[in-house]
Amino acid sequence: MRNLRIINELDRVAIVGVGLLGGSIGLALRAAGFTGRRIGIGRRRSSLNKALAYDAVDEVTCEPADGVAGAKLVILGAPVGMFADLLRRMAPGLKPGTLVTDVASTKAEVVRLTARLLPRGVRFVGSHPMAGSEKTGVEYARADLFDDALCILTPTKSTPPETVRQVEVFWRALGARTTRLSPRQHDRLLARISHLPHAVASALVQIARARNAIELAGPGFGDSTRIASGDAAMWTDIFRTNAGSMMEAIDLLIAELQKLRGRLAKDDAKAIERWLASSKTTRDAWVALRYEQSRKRGSST
Amino acid sequence: MRNLRIINELDRVAIVGVGLLGGSIGLALRAAGFTGRRIGIGRRRSSLNKALAYDAVDEVTCEPADGVAGAKLVILGAPVGMFADLLRRMAPGLKPGTLVTDVASTKAEVVRLTARLLPRGVRFVGSHPMAGSEKTGVEYARADLFDDALCILTPTKSTPPETVRQVEVFWRALGARTTRLSPRQHDRLLARISHLPHAVASALVQIARARNAIELAGPGFGDSTRIASGDAAMWTDIFRTNAGSMMEAIDLLIAELQKLRGRLAKDDAKAIERWLASSKTTRDAWVALRYEQSRKRGSST
Repeated sequence: MRNLRIINELDRVAIVGVGLLGGSIGLALRAAGFTGRRIGIGRRRSSLNKALAYDAVDEVTCEPADGVAGAKLVILGAPVGMFADLLRRMAPGLKPGTLVTDVASTKAEVVRLTARLLPRGVRFVGSHPMAGSEKTGVEYARADLFDDALCILTPTKSTPPETVRQVEVFWRALGARTTRLSPRQHDRLLARISHLPHAVASALVQIARARNAIELAGPGFGDSTRIASGDAAMWTDIFRTNAGSMMEAIDLLIAELQKLRGRLAKDDAKAIERWLASSKTTRDAWVALRYEQSRKRGSST
Repeated sequence: MRNLRIINELDRVAIVGVGLLGGSIGLALRAAGFTGRRIGIGRRRSSLNKALAYDAVDEVTCEPADGVAGAKLVILGAPVGMFADLLRRMAPGLKPGTLVTDVASTKAEVVRLTARLLPRGVRFVGSHPMAGSEKTGVEYARADLFDDALCILTPTKSTPPETVRQVEVFWRALGARTTRLSPRQHDRLLARISHLPHAVASALVQIARARNAIELAGPGFGDSTRIASGDAAMWTDIFRTNAGSMMEAIDLLIAELQKLRGRLAKDDAKAIERWLASSKTTRDAWVALRYEQSRKRGSST
């Protein structure tokens, strides 16, 4: 397998932050036939020991510069809020030519930080594998987490094409599909399909909590608020590093809600039904497309 | 079993509208040991034949007055928008003492309509079994749909206590838990935990559709918009018959979103994280409580 040969050329892969995503990368690498070393880098010894126990990595260290030394690929799996500090501490261990990527949910800020803080000659392209769950921690890591997941790469005009291709091959070896967007485009689209829905889920929980309405809530409420159980610190990072697009998306939602409110006030049954029907049609088509895509790939999801 | 004896005293049960909910009532009655007749009433012969084929009812008719004649319990499973017409057409067949209930998602309007249109002496109390799915039609009906589901009864000051108790026994025989709320209280709370989330899911789909952002959407988006695949006509009815509480709930959500927007503009990390953490804590506690409740009942959900 061509991909296997290419990922084994990586030889040493450093994973900075071995949680759900970082740990799943370690497990998926091994499952894909990677025979090199997987180095786990983290702040807490206890988390690193857990990552070893789950066989997500082969060796661990709390020293970023030591951990990345000799690695051909470094994956930043830590929260974006820690990137500046981490990049500074990794820098002394990074040699020119080293490939660096990340798994953060916002990209413009990450691209800015890496351009500023990575040593000259270190090659970077951002990645956003759209996989995960509201759970956190290596204990939820899975070798098949990236199977059939979409991974968005965010090259800039100055990213060498070969860098993008190498990171694409890496993700495909782990089972993911890949696509490319500019960091700015990525952040604007993700605000709509991921960050805004998260904010809304949290807001719905707040509204349901008042007057104890939540005690009556059923499975529909459970689904529509599931993502509100995500890690608060991580999502604070995501919101802050995508604040502009988030505010834009919030304004879009408020406008939609005002439109509906106006139709309710006028009891405009036709307009309400048309709006609901068009959302249903759009969502049903999206579900059918995803199902079709995953069937074609022979995946079980 | 006491409940079994009581439901068998019902002898003839008429189900008006044999879709997902009506059909599930038919199946659950039989599964609970009901030995009487289940009469399916509907507009289209083809739907009624399907209900017969699925064994959700024993006999069918398109004539409401014929269908309810001799029934000791009548359950309105049709959309609220059809209630006025249905109640008028049923009236000639209803004898004093007949018990009538419904399964609609809003209650104040239903209580108003039944008080106005049911013949004197016919006993009514509203029910809202919080079960269902985004699917519609008798082909999705399940005998266990009400297992461990909460059914809210909405008596008014003039509802005889015995009427409420009889309908409670009926729902418990079908596996549901029951609670009581005034019609107005029901509608205000449901706006928060069900109708607003539905509106939001539809709005999120609209926002994701613009600029084709939806093509990138993953499983989190799928969960948070699942309810947007519900039947548009049915939800138009729900929104319109609960317009006041819906507008109130929309205002609450807009206020929450404005608060978040302000915090993003000021980059108030602490306030954002506190807000997200409090939603997470509330939702996690709700999930734990639901799990605990269903574990105690020995249910598998």
